[in-house]
Amino acid sequence: MPSILYLQSGGPTSVINTSLYGVIKEAKKHPEITGIYGSLFGIYGILNDEIIDLRQEDDETIELLLQTSGAALGTARHKLNDDMTSDEYIKIVATLMKYDIRYLFINGGNDSMDTCNKLDYYLKSQRYDCCVIGIPKTIDNDLALLDHSLGFPSAAKYVIQTIQNIRLDCVSYSRGKIILVEVMGRNAGWLTASCVVNPLSKPDLLYLPENPFDMEAFLSDVQEIYLKNKSCLVVLSEGVPVPDKFVKSETDAFGHFQFGGVANLLASIIGDRFGFQTRSIELNTPQRSAPFLISKVDQKEAIKVSEFAVQNALEGKSGKMVCIKRISNKPYRIKLELGNVSNIANFERKIPESMFIDSKNDLDHSFYEYLLPLIKGEIDLKYQDGILKSAVLKKIKPNI
Amino acid sequence: MPSILYLQSGGPTSVINTSLYGVIKEAKKHPEITGIYGSLFGIYGILNDEIIDLRQEDDETIELLLQTSGAALGTARHKLNDDMTSDEYIKIVATLMKYDIRYLFINGGNDSMDTCNKLDYYLKSQRYDCCVIGIPKTIDNDLALLDHSLGFPSAAKYVIQTIQNIRLDCVSYSRGKIILVEVMGRNAGWLTASCVVNPLSKPDLLYLPENPFDMEAFLSDVQEIYLKNKSCLVVLSEGVPVPDKFVKSETDAFGHFQFGGVANLLASIIGDRFGFQTRSIELNTPQRSAPFLISKVDQKEAIKVSEFAVQNALEGKSGKMVCIKRISNKPYRIKLELGNVSNIANFERKIPESMFIDSKNDLDHSFYEYLLPLIKGEIDLKYQDGILKSAVLKKIKPNI
Repeated sequence: MPSILYLQSGGPTSVINTSLYGVIKEAKKHPEITGIYGSLFGIYGILNDEIIDLRQEDDETIELLLQTSGAALGTARHKLNDDMTSDEYIKIVATLMKYDIRYLFINGGNDSMDTCNKLDYYLKSQRYDCCVIGIPKTIDNDLALLDHSLGFPSAAKYVIQTIQNIRLDCVSYSRGKIILVEVMGRNAGWLTASCVVNPLSKPDLLYLPENPFDMEAFLSDVQEIYLKNKSCLVVLSEGVPVPDKFVKSETDAFGHFQFGGVANLLASIIGDRFGFQTRSIELNTPQRSAPFLISKVDQKEAIKVSEFAVQNALEGKSGKMVCIKRISNKPYRIKLELGNVSNIANFERKIPESMFIDSKNDLDHSFYEYLLPLIKGEIDLKYQDGILKSAVLKKIKPNI
Repeated sequence: MPSILYLQSGGPTSVINTSLYGVIKEAKKHPEITGIYGSLFGIYGILNDEIIDLRQEDDETIELLLQTSGAALGTARHKLNDDMTSDEYIKIVATLMKYDIRYLFINGGNDSMDTCNKLDYYLKSQRYDCCVIGIPKTIDNDLALLDHSLGFPSAAKYVIQTIQNIRLDCVSYSRGKIILVEVMGRNAGWLTASCVVNPLSKPDLLYLPENPFDMEAFLSDVQEIYLKNKSCLVVLSEGVPVPDKFVKSETDAFGHFQFGGVANLLASIIGDRFGFQTRSIELNTPQRSAPFLISKVDQKEAIKVSEFAVQNALEGKSGKMVCIKRISNKPYRIKLELGNVSNIANFERKIPESMFIDSKNDLDHSFYEYLLPLIKGEIDLKYQDGILKSAVLKKIKPNI
């Protein structure tokens, strides 16, 4: 009675539940698959035997996964022990055996592919026959070996649209402001940089984790633009490398927990130095949880990737992640391949040097061509009383 | 050659440009109206003779006003001099005469109705024949004499939807968080309170400007809920009356400009006291500038109110604002009336005591019945390359 198990890992994206949708739909097409299970809270579900039966979900709930924020099964950030004699691995095999799991799908980013890699290695070493396949997901878009990650296009669409709205709101006032918008991305600037592709969201100044950050140059650039234009739109990644001495001194001065990120800190430094009217806006978790701005391309690809993952697992592939490769840009076309998770786990793909232009504050045309096809198209949405309907899984334990 | 002039005032809403759309469309139906003009940056446009010719705009641009963020003509916060011998009034009459403005529409909130009131009084005293009509607008929903303000329903829809998304994102993690969401509203809690009507956006704790704020009770309530549920969702208005001593001491401790509002401050106090993992999310300007969450009811009413405003001005009414009155709830039906701006200017309508239940941390069924019909329905949107198209006015000076 071979069964499949799917789990979600790392930060949610707007289409992580679309991947779940795709796995369930594809798995149901294959009569050789008996159980279709979900692990609650990522790897913890396997470790603690918190497994639910996804065949119990009705069709409407499954359809609503396409527009449900968050990770419907729950997610986790947990690195498996490097030492494979650890109890963790024994617990994992026990759970997999209990449900006769022969196909395991891990939907996550870099760290999750580390889990994928370890489990593939360990299960083979134990001669437990189970195909482990990774399904890529991260709004950071920093997974190696692929053109882009699922979830990134929709987050980019949100960032561009929201910054356009912020700019239009800001320019409504004759006396402008300095506005600092903080976008997610600790080590890679893909998502932050996406705002450049649209004239109304393109900022005056852009700061990314890929480039060094010079506080004096920053302050002088902001001052110059604000005095000239009476407004200044700055967009920056949460991971902009502000030198420690500025962050440290703030923390010490506060003498307590510091909340708000780098935009807040820089707004405060601008206020101190110049007294200019400054507002910081952190896009925060809504940027990865906004079904009404899911890109149609992202949705379609998420479903295709799940189909491909299930089909390849059934063919016996393991220790692989599904990779999206771009075949052409005009028209935009992709193909799916399998990449070795050992080449993906723990790597980070940053924006290549070649895409930056001189000042490092802007990106060249190749970045525009890369991004624009990804954010195209809108999805159909189901509302009830003016608010999006969401799938709430029954979380019923399988009756085995 | 009688002409009309329209101006935008105060903070933008998602439908302020829908009001502009409605005024242009209705005015064009009346052959007796010659010029259709817009004042740039609210009253400043009249003071500085920065008037544009709205008849120059093509049909597509006018249609796109229905989905354009910000105030397309620019807005202002400027209180006219109480002393009507001031130069300001002389400048205003000069501009009105120059363009033969006989109908003036002021689209704004409480303060803007003060402008409406003063101009109506002054122009009558000068025997300058011009009908001054107010078009209500404020996401705060605090205008007197009406059931609700234009812009509030769409902002409420945004707040409810976004808090639902934030909650679904938050509960994806087995180890929960304390999340504090800050909503606009300095003196009235209508917009903040709107989150209670939906099970997924209903917070554990709600704080509004209408009620006193007790720091110790707040901290103890947060602690109790967090320890019990492993998560706590707090929603609060920017104008929650946190006692000065907490705000002051923070400002002093920082020794510099403080950025971020009350949610940030409270998150920092929770962190100090308990060390719990806490995140503050300020919904910020996107809550009033999100065309993709415009309520269909709000859009329809904005157009009707503009039609009614133009029709009544042509009938010689002046010193009035258009008021939305609710006739019935099931089915939801409204009628439009004119109210005296002197009864609206500078008043603030807060949530009535009767809508609160015991703890003041929740609202009773009458609030649900009040709000639910307002957020219903979604509007059609036009995208280009995955991003909403926006109207950019030509801002051409009239050729008179």
